[in-house]
Amino acid sequence: MKKYASLWLDYKAKKNNRDCGCLGSISISGAGESDIRVQNAVRELKNGLKAMLDIEPEIVFGSAGSHTGAVGSSSGLSDGSAAGSLNGQSILDNEEYRITLEKDGLAIEANSGRGILYAAFDILRCISCERSLKETYASGKTVRPSNPLRMLNHWDNMDGTIERGYSGRSFFYVDNEIVIDERTVDYARLIASVGINAVVINNVNVKDAASYMITDRYYDKLAKLGEVFAGYGIGLYLSLNYASTIEIGGLDSADPLDPEVIAWWKDKMAEVFERIPTLKGFLVKADSEGRPGPFTYGRTQADGANMLADIVKEYGGIIIWRCFVYNCKQDWRHTKTDRARSGYDNFMPMDGDYHDNVILQIKNGPMDFQIREPVSPLLGGLKKTNQMLEVQIAQEYTGQQIDVCYLIPMFKEILGFKTYCSEKDDTVADIISGKTFGSRFSGIAAVTNTGNDFNWTGNYLAGANLFGFGRLGFDTDLTSEQIAEEFIKMTISDDPGVVDVIMGILLPSRAVYEKYSAPLGIGWMVQPATHYGCSVDGYEYDRWGTYHRADHLGLGVDRTDKGTGYALLYNEPNASVYNSPDECPDELVLFFHHLPYTHKLHSGKTVIQHIYDSHFEGYEEAKQMAAKWENLKDKLDSEIFYNVSKRFERQLANAREWCDQVNSYFFRKSGIPDEKGRQIW
Amino acid sequence: MKKYASLWLDYKAKKNNRDCGCLGSISISGAGESDIRVQNAVRELKNGLKAMLDIEPEIVFGSAGSHTGAVGSSSGLSDGSAAGSLNGQSILDNEEYRITLEKDGLAIEANSGRGILYAAFDILRCISCERSLKETYASGKTVRPSNPLRMLNHWDNMDGTIERGYSGRSFFYVDNEIVIDERTVDYARLIASVGINAVVINNVNVKDAASYMITDRYYDKLAKLGEVFAGYGIGLYLSLNYASTIEIGGLDSADPLDPEVIAWWKDKMAEVFERIPTLKGFLVKADSEGRPGPFTYGRTQADGANMLADIVKEYGGIIIWRCFVYNCKQDWRHTKTDRARSGYDNFMPMDGDYHDNVILQIKNGPMDFQIREPVSPLLGGLKKTNQMLEVQIAQEYTGQQIDVCYLIPMFKEILGFKTYCSEKDDTVADIISGKTFGSRFSGIAAVTNTGNDFNWTGNYLAGANLFGFGRLGFDTDLTSEQIAEEFIKMTISDDPGVVDVIMGILLPSRAVYEKYSAPLGIGWMVQPATHYGCSVDGYEYDRWGTYHRADHLGLGVDRTDKGTGYALLYNEPNASVYNSPDECPDELVLFFHHLPYTHKLHSGKTVIQHIYDSHFEGYEEAKQMAAKWENLKDKLDSEIFYNVSKRFERQLANAREWCDQVNSYFFRKSGIPDEKGRQIW
Repeated sequence: MKKYASLWLDYKAKKNNRDCGCLGSISISGAGESDIRVQNAVRELKNGLKAMLDIEPEIVFGSAGSHTGAVGSSSGLSDGSAAGSLNGQSILDNEEYRITLEKDGLAIEANSGRGILYAAFDILRCISCERSLKETYASGKTVRPSNPLRMLNHWDNMDGTIERGYSGRSFFYVDNEIVIDERTVDYARLIASVGINAVVINNVNVKDAASYMITDRYYDKLAKLGEVFAGYGIGLYLSLNYASTIEIGGLDSADPLDPEVIAWWKDKMAEVFERIPTLKGFLVKADSEGRPGPFTYGRTQADGANMLADIVKEYGGIIIWRCFVYNCKQDWRHTKTDRARSGYDNFMPMDGDYHDNVILQIKNGPMDFQIREPVSPLLGGLKKTNQMLEVQIAQEYTGQQIDVCYLIPMFKEILGFKTYCSEKDDTVADIISGKTFGSRFSGIAAVTNTGNDFNWTGNYLAGANLFGFGRLGFDTDLTSEQIAEEFIKMTISDDPGVVDVIMGILLPSRAVYEKYSAPLGIGWMVQPATHYGCSVDGYEYDRWGTYHRADHLGLGVDRTDKGTGYALLYNEPNASVYNSPDECPDELVLFFHHLPYTHKLHSGKTVIQHIYDSHFEGYEEAKQMAAKWENLKDKLDSEIFYNVSKRFERQLANAREWCDQVNSYFFRKSGIPDEKGRQIW
Repeated sequence: MKKYASLWLDYKAKKNNRDCGCLGSISISGAGESDIRVQNAVRELKNGLKAMLDIEPEIVFGSAGSHTGAVGSSSGLSDGSAAGSLNGQSILDNEEYRITLEKDGLAIEANSGRGILYAAFDILRCISCERSLKETYASGKTVRPSNPLRMLNHWDNMDGTIERGYSGRSFFYVDNEIVIDERTVDYARLIASVGINAVVINNVNVKDAASYMITDRYYDKLAKLGEVFAGYGIGLYLSLNYASTIEIGGLDSADPLDPEVIAWWKDKMAEVFERIPTLKGFLVKADSEGRPGPFTYGRTQADGANMLADIVKEYGGIIIWRCFVYNCKQDWRHTKTDRARSGYDNFMPMDGDYHDNVILQIKNGPMDFQIREPVSPLLGGLKKTNQMLEVQIAQEYTGQQIDVCYLIPMFKEILGFKTYCSEKDDTVADIISGKTFGSRFSGIAAVTNTGNDFNWTGNYLAGANLFGFGRLGFDTDLTSEQIAEEFIKMTISDDPGVVDVIMGILLPSRAVYEKYSAPLGIGWMVQPATHYGCSVDGYEYDRWGTYHRADHLGLGVDRTDKGTGYALLYNEPNASVYNSPDECPDELVLFFHHLPYTHKLHSGKTVIQHIYDSHFEGYEEAKQMAAKWENLKDKLDSEIFYNVSKRFERQLANAREWCDQVNSYFFRKSGIPDEKGRQIW
């Protein structure tokens, strides 16, 4: 009995092993056998090739000492010195690799064990997807990850619950103890295989037992966990309680400029990095949603981040500082206060003040992981600060792993967004890759969607977001289609008929979810607290800064120069485009403008008719998706089939409520009938 | 240090002990010294008189054997035999008493220890309120309680939580154990002093440990608790898990006609009544909000109730069966389905089928304890069934013991409602007193508002509802003013200036709450789940049968003959009055009718203007109430002052949100401006 699914590392036997003849041997050079990551790479290769192809190629190691310089120059790999190297495991360890087809096998060259590991997974993926090894590697394939940091943020609490977790309980913690077992290793394998190189293992809201992670209570276990991770090229990060000086240090302040506070942190960090040698740094949520922070002491966010960064610098550590700072006690009556502005207003003035081992982690949109938001104006606003993009694959607002919502198309849009922050290389992808401003520390992080469910992600199809996030972070040029196809073939079935059907479910699923939920970029309209299901007014008269401002004439938030001014925070021409109701893209028009129901969109439809049409369509398309899945019954593993089938039942109930409630709400409010005379309640 | 407040049994020293000279002795006849209730009465009298007046009158007992017949005939007391008497402690024990002024003291006559106890509290209340003993008792005062059963329903769970509890945790249970201590006795004293004679000690939603109350695990403690209660004339009742046969009995059915089920209950009840000799019966919530019941087996509610009643009859027990049966998975799209009808539809057809030791417990309104509902049509509909009125003093929907809401005026309205069920004696008060249909078992129950807070009821002023419920159940003719005055004088202060001010807070408080919350009888519009605070659409698109049906033209639920037909469930002329938008009282008009915002009320205002005016007024009046309280700062015990003051702060915040959200919602929806041009957001 398997205790949990292998997902994309299932290594099923391949019937069409077209050119495995070329795999007589695999030569490895650039990192030696003593490197644990190389050992893991070799084990993975052997197991995978045996299972899929029933072959046992010879593994040949290149001569010691020949690697870095020699291979680097001969293969065209850049050398590994860019970020300096602390025993081959620094945060910016060189990750490039090259795979070349040779007469009797494949040759892997890299500058680090991590590169070897990624190369191994590259080969295994190639076989798993039944691609031709020859075609793939004939002319040599050199790969360098798009982003320095590709990180998962776990919102796991030490009591075993997961904040916004939809896949069971934590596999890291049971009853305030850290658990390290076979699943820990398989988790590391799964995420390393898609290129994740950093994991924050605890909730950004650090409280209760988690405040004691940086004490003797947990050091040994954390050291052990860090070693497991390191074996797969994964850096260990902790969320830090900014108020540790008070909560565990016995001081009465957390003022970042207070010498006593600084002294406490110095001692503490010396201890922490000694006891957890593989630790790479910390994620900090401060001054947000009730968490303490520098603002409490009249200091800037930079004061707080820099204080910690300066202290951890000597241990090669970094501080990732979240930009999710806003007033969560807003008065709904104040139409000029705008939560969307808060990240920008709080962090832009200090651009350039952050020290170079600080990274600001910026949510993709200015609000909070809605199905549609404009890209945060901090991305492309900040020019002298290390930046990391934060997305959420836990589908808090996008179906909670009940509804299918393949998020990679959304992430592609975000990464491709032109910020106009420079003459060239000005997309979000460019910025976070480090290309635009030459940042050393940058990348992409996702609030993860995993738990201890058998299939790790609640809905098997939600696995596509975990897989896809890793793949996209590693190679931003991959398309949504390529990623979906790889995921399906590796995880669910390589039957081409099945792959096509599931592609037809995954690819439109984000658009479908958007259609039946809050319209035209306005967001929210969800059930308060749970965030699943429709409640049009659920957040309308509340303190969270989340309003649609609908009345009998129209809806939307005026964020133009006549409203909150948010649109003007963008670089031109984005600012002008967003500021104009006529130029603003339809899908964001209610985010930026308060418009009459009768306003004509670019689509030619009125706002109200768009609401009706999109909601009827969304529900209808959800039904079609579910019907497609039902047709696969005889072609799928029954565990997978029923898991998704049951969730589709719930999705349809949810989609129906969204459709009917949104349509009824706006019909009742506007009094304008549906042109097509469909049933509105 | 007091561990909890004494409330109205505080027995403060009285400065104006005008005629205590008459209290040289108190003679007691009709029940002997061996009766524990008499002993408790004597102790109470001695302690109270010593504390308030510093006197120690002689207690003289009437000759043994002289009581029942003799005193009965001499004093005009009816005899105690009406309900039969099982060791002087039957459910319908005679409770009448007479207090007569004699030359050197007072004479108490009664037919039972319970009568003596109530007489003692009568005398103590008279002194505590600084009334003249002479004027009160000069011509003899004969009292017989208005209702046979005056009951409190605790929704305490055995884990210590209280469902809809707003005063801390349970004082009956800690960690699934029953606690019996000094507070238990003082609780019995407090409620006996206002005439409560029955208590259900556990939540009607019986689950977890509470299912095991009728097992060996709890018998000893329950027997002991029952004895404490009995000493104060209080009958012990338990909420029963209707599915006990399955959950603790190991059977696979709870079908009331299944011989195995019946046999199990027979054995079980024999055991229960043997082990808990003071037990008087059970309260049952079946087929409601997910609880199992007879409907599960295709049986009627009468089948279920009668099965249990027949079995407990030989032990003198009764079954109280709640009529709160409705479809809690209603589709909001179905405008002809009406939760308001469900109690009537489920219970009326079996009128006459219920055996004579069954009582149907009927919530005052057809919905669920809203600030304004019509009286349930079952009251006055049922003519051949024992009935008990259920009200709620836990302010679930009426401010949760944060907002001041003195409910006695509401209860007075309900009791005074003419049902037209007979030529005379047709009010709700008449029905539940037993007068209308000659019921033996009837009365009034309240879901109680107590917990282990220092002051028992969260807000000191919420104590007025506990006090008042008891007093009103005992003497339905008391006015809201009389009860408020007694409460204030006994509990807070007997300073006449203070009494006046607090009367001016308590008496209008229900009207104020009604003004700033859901308008014109429509109800709901509360935050889902918590039920505190405004959410106009909170229950509008949900499954609970709780809708306002507002659109851009109007609002309200059509419950007329053209709608759900609910109005016609009443006896004439009530049915016709409610069925007509012109005749229907303003305060209920949206409960019965869907009306345009421009509809003119009897008040001369339009519906929309009424909404605006009442909400602005309600908030304004709440501020005035709070200001009145603040003026008492120097005249009150600081514990009491600050307790209420802090709650007024929260009430004002709540009232402001209600006012602004309701007004904004309807302005945005209707587009009709306030005639007076006030700020609407």
